[in-house]
Amino acid sequence: MTDQTPSGDPATARAGAMLTIDLDAIKANYQRLVQELKGTTCAAVVKADGYGLGAARVGPALAAAGARQFFVALPDEAIALRAALAEAAPQAEIYVLGGPMRGAEADYLAHDIRPVLNSLGDVEHWRALALRESRSLPAMLHVDTGMNRLGLPPGELETLADDPSRLDGLVSAGLMSHLACSEDRANPMNAEQLVLFRAARAQLPKMPASFANSSGIFLGKDYHFDIARPGVALYGVNPTPGRPSPMTQVVHLKGKILQVRDVDAPQHVGYGATHRVSGAARIATVAVGYADGYLRSLSNRGVGIIGGMRVPVVGRISMDLVTFDLSTVAPEAAVPGAMIDLMGLDLDLDDVGERAGTVGYEILTALGSRYHRVYLGD
Amino acid sequence: MTDQTPSGDPATARAGAMLTIDLDAIKANYQRLVQELKGTTCAAVVKADGYGLGAARVGPALAAAGARQFFVALPDEAIALRAALAEAAPQAEIYVLGGPMRGAEADYLAHDIRPVLNSLGDVEHWRALALRESRSLPAMLHVDTGMNRLGLPPGELETLADDPSRLDGLVSAGLMSHLACSEDRANPMNAEQLVLFRAARAQLPKMPASFANSSGIFLGKDYHFDIARPGVALYGVNPTPGRPSPMTQVVHLKGKILQVRDVDAPQHVGYGATHRVSGAARIATVAVGYADGYLRSLSNRGVGIIGGMRVPVVGRISMDLVTFDLSTVAPEAAVPGAMIDLMGLDLDLDDVGERAGTVGYEILTALGSRYHRVYLGD
Repeated sequence: MTDQTPSGDPATARAGAMLTIDLDAIKANYQRLVQELKGTTCAAVVKADGYGLGAARVGPALAAAGARQFFVALPDEAIALRAALAEAAPQAEIYVLGGPMRGAEADYLAHDIRPVLNSLGDVEHWRALALRESRSLPAMLHVDTGMNRLGLPPGELETLADDPSRLDGLVSAGLMSHLACSEDRANPMNAEQLVLFRAARAQLPKMPASFANSSGIFLGKDYHFDIARPGVALYGVNPTPGRPSPMTQVVHLKGKILQVRDVDAPQHVGYGATHRVSGAARIATVAVGYADGYLRSLSNRGVGIIGGMRVPVVGRISMDLVTFDLSTVAPEAAVPGAMIDLMGLDLDLDDVGERAGTVGYEILTALGSRYHRVYLGD
Repeated sequence: MTDQTPSGDPATARAGAMLTIDLDAIKANYQRLVQELKGTTCAAVVKADGYGLGAARVGPALAAAGARQFFVALPDEAIALRAALAEAAPQAEIYVLGGPMRGAEADYLAHDIRPVLNSLGDVEHWRALALRESRSLPAMLHVDTGMNRLGLPPGELETLADDPSRLDGLVSAGLMSHLACSEDRANPMNAEQLVLFRAARAQLPKMPASFANSSGIFLGKDYHFDIARPGVALYGVNPTPGRPSPMTQVVHLKGKILQVRDVDAPQHVGYGATHRVSGAARIATVAVGYADGYLRSLSNRGVGIIGGMRVPVVGRISMDLVTFDLSTVAPEAAVPGAMIDLMGLDLDLDDVGERAGTVGYEILTALGSRYHRVYLGD
C-alpha cells in the first residue's frame, strides 16, 4: 500500500479533516442580499457561533462587508461578538434574540447589548431597568405572527397597543417578527403572517420594522420593510429550495483516508454489521465521525467525492470514523493520506442535509471542533 | 406572567441551559468496570473530547480513579490530553486510534504519544521512524476481526505472522481488535470475532491483548484478555441494552424557559408549522436548539420533565429554541426562568438517543458548547 505523505505544516499533517471557510464568499453573499434588498438595511444573524463557522471570524468579515446590526441567540454570544467586533465595528448594534435574561442585566449594559423583548414581561423588566439607570435603553420589540415560539402573543400586543406608554423609557430600535414557512414560497402562511405583522405595525408607535429572514428576502419587496435579518443564506445554504441557489458556497470539508482495504469475500462493514459487501470492494476508512457532526443519520446514505467519482458511505458512521466504498475510484487516488470531499463543491449543504434527513442549517451548526479550520479571505 | 429570577452568579443568569457533569460518577463507573474485569487492566477511552464531556476534566478524573492507559482518536486530542494529565498521571500511556499520521511524527515523539498501528504500512512507517531515532518506539498493533474499518486485514496479518521481524524496533505494547456488535450479546458475530482474535494472538509474538470495549466487558471473562478499553459506559450510557444499566448517570441537562404562552385557538407551532395545537395549550419556549446538539430529529418526539410531569416537544426544533407543551404542568411551575430537565435523572441518554433515532453515544458527543457547564466532584 502506497502512502501519500501530505506536504505542509504539522497541524495539517495531524488533522483528520480540513474545514475551509471562505470569508470572501460570506461577504459576497452579504452583498448579494444587499442587492436583493434594494435599500432595505441588511443586518446579519451570527448566532450559534456564526452558524458553526466561528462568529469571531465571521462577524468581522460581515462588518467589513457593511453589516452594522447583528443578531445572536444568547448574551454570552453577544459578549463574545462585541469583543470580536471591537476593531471592525465598535458601534455595531448587537441584539439578543433570547431576550433580557433575568439577573444578567449588568452584562447587557457593560457590553452595550440590546435585548429583543419577547413579551410584556420583558418590556416591563427592561423598562424598569431603564428607570433604575435613569436613561433610555434601546431594544427591539418582537411580536409573534404565528410561530408560537417567541414574541408578544396577540393579547399582549393588544395591551401594548392600548397603552403605548408602556414603552416609555425604551428606545424602540425596531419591531420584528419571524416567518415560519418562508422557504416554501407557495405556503399561504407567509401572506397570513405578513397581514398580521402589518396590523401590529399599525397598532404600535412608529419604529423600524424587521420581518424577513434569509428566505423571506426572496419572497419579494413586500416582505423587506426596513431591516432584513438573514442568517443561513450568508453561509451558503440555499434560501430558495427547489430553485437554483443565489448564494455562493462557503464551506468545504475534506476528510483524510486512514486506511484502504480490498475486501474480496462477502463481509460486513462497521458497527452492527449493517452493510454487507457482496463481492469484491475497496473500502476506505476516513477520520471523520458523528462526533465531528458528520451526522450518524448519514450511515449508508452519505456520499463523498474522490478522484472525480461520487462514492457512497457504507455501514454505520462511527464516532470518529466513516467508511466509503471506493471500488469505482482509480487505485492511485484511493490511498491512505488522500483527502475525500465530504461537503462543499459538488456536495452542497442542502444535499448533505437532505441525505441526513435534516436541513443544511443543522449540518452547518453541527460542524465539529476537531476539524482543522482554514479561513480564506480577510 | 410572573418571572422567576434565577439566583446565583451572572454566568448562570446568562445561560440558556445548564449542563452538569458528575466527575465522581465517571470515577464510580470506572471502578464498576474494574470490579467487573476482575484483574484485567482497565484503560479509558477519552476520544471525541471525552465523549463530549471535556477530556481536560474527564482525563484527570479517570487518572484519579486509577486509569493509566488512555485512548484518543487523533493526535491533536493526544497532545491536549498529555497536557491535561501532566499532574494527575504524567506517565500515562496515550494511544492514538487513528494511527501514525504521516508528517506528524515529531509531535508524537515530543508528547510521548503512541500510535495504534492499523496496517502493515503503519508498522513499516513507525519502524522506519524507530530506526531513524535509534531507539525502540512503543505502539499497539490493531488486527481487524470483522469491522472492516481499521486494523490489519487477514492478508497483512499473515504477512506479519510469516515474518515477525517486521516488528523489530517496535515495543509491542499490545495487540488489539474491536468488536462490531458487542452491545447485542446474542449476536453470533461476537464469538466469531473472538475466534479470529485468539487466532491472531496465537500467530504473533506474545504481547498484551486488548479486545473488549464497554459492552464487551459485559460479554464475560473470555472477552477480557489483558487490557479492556471502555469508553461510553464511563459516561453513563448503558453497555447492556435491554437490561438494567450497571452504570451511574453522569450528565444532567436543564434548559431555561424563555417564554410561556397560552394558546386557545387552533394554531401551529414552530417552523414548517408541523405541530397543530387543536385546543387550549400552554406552550413553553426553551433556550436550547439543534445548534446545542439537541438534535433536530427530536422534533415532535423529545420529552422534558418539569414540575414532576413528562412533557412533549411540540413542533420542529429550531437552531436555538425548542417548544414544549406544558398544559399538564402546574401553572406556578411553568414560568419563564424556570428550568426544564432535558437529559439525565429520569431521561437517560439511551432514551434520548432512541427518541432521536440514534444512540446515546451521539447524544453525548453532540452536547453543545453554549451550555453553561458545571463539573461536580474533583
